Amino acid sequence: MTRIHIDPALVEAMIMEMGTIGAHSGTGVWRTVYSPAWVAANDLFARWSEEAGLSVSRDAVGNVWSKLAGTEGGKSIVSGSHIDTQTPGGRYDGTLGALSALIALRALSEQFGSPKRTMEALSLCEEEGSRFPGANFWGSRAITGAIAPGDAEAMKGYSGETMAEAMLAIGLNPQAIPSAKRDDIDAFIELHIEQGPILEHADLPVAIVDAITGLRHYHVRLTGEQNHAGAFPMDLRRDPMAGFAEIASGVINTAHRLGRPAVTTIGRIAADPNGAAVVPRSVSFTVDARHPDPEKRLQLYALHEGLMREVAERRGLAIEWEIGIEKVPCLSDPGLVTTFREAAAVQGVPTLTMASGAGHDTQQMAKIARTVMIFVRSKDGRSHTPEEFSSIPDIVAGIEVLAAGLHRLAY
Amino acid sequence: MTRIHIDPALVEAMIMEMGTIGAHSGTGVWRTVYSPAWVAANDLFARWSEEAGLSVSRDAVGNVWSKLAGTEGGKSIVSGSHIDTQTPGGRYDGTLGALSALIALRALSEQFGSPKRTMEALSLCEEEGSRFPGANFWGSRAITGAIAPGDAEAMKGYSGETMAEAMLAIGLNPQAIPSAKRDDIDAFIELHIEQGPILEHADLPVAIVDAITGLRHYHVRLTGEQNHAGAFPMDLRRDPMAGFAEIASGVINTAHRLGRPAVTTIGRIAADPNGAAVVPRSVSFTVDARHPDPEKRLQLYALHEGLMREVAERRGLAIEWEIGIEKVPCLSDPGLVTTFREAAAVQGVPTLTMASGAGHDTQQMAKIARTVMIFVRSKDGRSHTPEEFSSIPDIVAGIEVLAAGLHRLAY
Repeated sequence: MTRIHIDPALVEAMIMEMGTIGAHSGTGVWRTVYSPAWVAANDLFARWSEEAGLSVSRDAVGNVWSKLAGTEGGKSIVSGSHIDTQTPGGRYDGTLGALSALIALRALSEQFGSPKRTMEALSLCEEEGSRFPGANFWGSRAITGAIAPGDAEAMKGYSGETMAEAMLAIGLNPQAIPSAKRDDIDAFIELHIEQGPILEHADLPVAIVDAITGLRHYHVRLTGEQNHAGAFPMDLRRDPMAGFAEIASGVINTAHRLGRPAVTTIGRIAADPNGAAVVPRSVSFTVDARHPDPEKRLQLYALHEGLMREVAERRGLAIEWEIGIEKVPCLSDPGLVTTFREAAAVQGVPTLTMASGAGHDTQQMAKIARTVMIFVRSKDGRSHTPEEFSSIPDIVAGIEVLAAGLHRLAY
Repeated sequence: MTRIHIDPALVEAMIMEMGTIGAHSGTGVWRTVYSPAWVAANDLFARWSEEAGLSVSRDAVGNVWSKLAGTEGGKSIVSGSHIDTQTPGGRYDGTLGALSALIALRALSEQFGSPKRTMEALSLCEEEGSRFPGANFWGSRAITGAIAPGDAEAMKGYSGETMAEAMLAIGLNPQAIPSAKRDDIDAFIELHIEQGPILEHADLPVAIVDAITGLRHYHVRLTGEQNHAGAFPMDLRRDPMAGFAEIASGVINTAHRLGRPAVTTIGRIAADPNGAAVVPRSVSFTVDARHPDPEKRLQLYALHEGLMREVAERRGLAIEWEIGIEKVPCLSDPGLVTTFREAAAVQGVPTLTMASGAGHDTQQMAKIARTVMIFVRSKDGRSHTPEEFSSIPDIVAGIEVLAAGLHRLAY
């Protein structure tokens, strides 16, 4: 029954120092991929890794790998997360997972010496898409070989520069991207803030994530008849706003009734012509529907589609939709879920097991490795803002679970 | 039992010739106030008036008055509508009422000689606000003395020019606007296309309008909590889009259940931040509610306000609204309604009596005179588009009712 000790003072010092790099808006951080702040953050990550006795290497896209070699060799056990942020984000989203892996490996090395299996702490270069909107998961996609030749040259940033230009500006060679591919990773474990309120409402510090949700975006347009708001009686209208309201209530209620972890959101809407005294010709909107269960998600989508068709037909409205983002659920490795749940129990950290409703690098890494995630409680469920916050006791609990699980896998 | 004859060929010829002035997009007309097309249209109206033996005068804002003097003098009986259009509008909205008055006076003069009471056909200079968004009812507001000193100098057009500049450019003196005020009008009768589908659905050519609707615009903002669309469970959200959907369905259903002539429209909506994967922070929208009955309109507003407050409170959303446009109902003179209904019956024109859901110059004229309106059936209930259309037989029926009613009032 091995227990790991993680030093809260060290954890807090590292989070606060890393948070000064790209500091913005008080407690915020603005650290887009390949920016000067990003270079400085990775240099710090590398320096701390070396101070911890880890051997540091950087790959073609700038991911930083800090290795604790195992006596028996074989495929690596990797933990980490992304070092880039939203504009601005906070100190925790992504960065906490990279620091936690480094802290866990340092603690394991100090307390237990060399492992049998090789472990690596990973600072992933890019996840947020906050400088290049098409770049999401750039770091993990390079590792899994999912970046096609020419992608870096074709991808444009918000300021007009290409990804290739941004790489060259800091000495990275876009032609070398294929060399970042890895095929020797056994397991990938990502610690991340929850970004939601489930742990807070359950009054628990840490969760083991058994799946990352499947999600589908519908881009829907309802078309009726544009009419004068005064001269057209209600009973003769074909009003797409009335149809939208019924559909919006319906899909939101459907997800609510199905219960957690089903979620459905209508975040985008536009009426045409959008005049106060005009029954609109058309209403366009998005439906974001998510469920981590491979079959229940299809049930959720089918319920939404059935409702949309029924409302449109009954109201004499034309309806058309396109499916935008479509992600299948990413199921965690059941063995890793069990390993980390048991490690948490021995460590004395109470956990729950939950699905992630947000996307993560782990979804990419799952293509080449067994995966699992660890969530740390988020204050008010917030992220992507300078106000995001997780307490040091909760973070320490999360790192203890991470380190205890890694100990079971590697020693 | 006097019957009036209106010549369909003359009616059609005048509509089509007037429709060539500012012709746009095939059957459309683009004739904004004080534009060259507007000048030409009023010159044509004046020439036709003189050819019909009417005495023509123009007031300070460019309204054209064509008088058929009565043998007994006294206050005038006036009929007309506006000669300006949307950009583009069609051949009928407004213009039909000016031409109908002219045609009716010509027919009455030809068939019955001089009247006892003085009658005037009126081409109102501006109603649509299509060149100056603040100008609505410019012509009728000048007649009722509702234009304040300095208004013409302060009012800006869509192209940046002031109303005063536009007037001076065609030889009108903004300083003289107060001279357009009239206090010698006994009755104002406006013939207009219906702009809605009620006559078409009732299979009738003409309506007598007993009221112009009261209307109120609410500008509403619902504020909840912005959240991640994946990470926040449905049961913990305070989602303003869900609240909006319930309110939109509720107010639309309320007006529908109250039955004609209640109408409620949600035409404008905006979500903030309007992202597909974000539960919005706030949703802003308009509620346009209309009822011509002075008491029932207040009941309609109270039902809407009660529902909005209840939904917001139950869902933990903040709600605030401002009232924008607020118009009290404009009731037609009961005596004039009876006169024109009886005249229609004698004339053999089947009518119904209905409220107008749209606003008209008549609302302004009602401040200084008894009023009533005559509606002519609109194809598909359409207006403010080149496709607006009323048939010559329906128009002739409408002008016969107008002329027959004027005959009762003036001979």
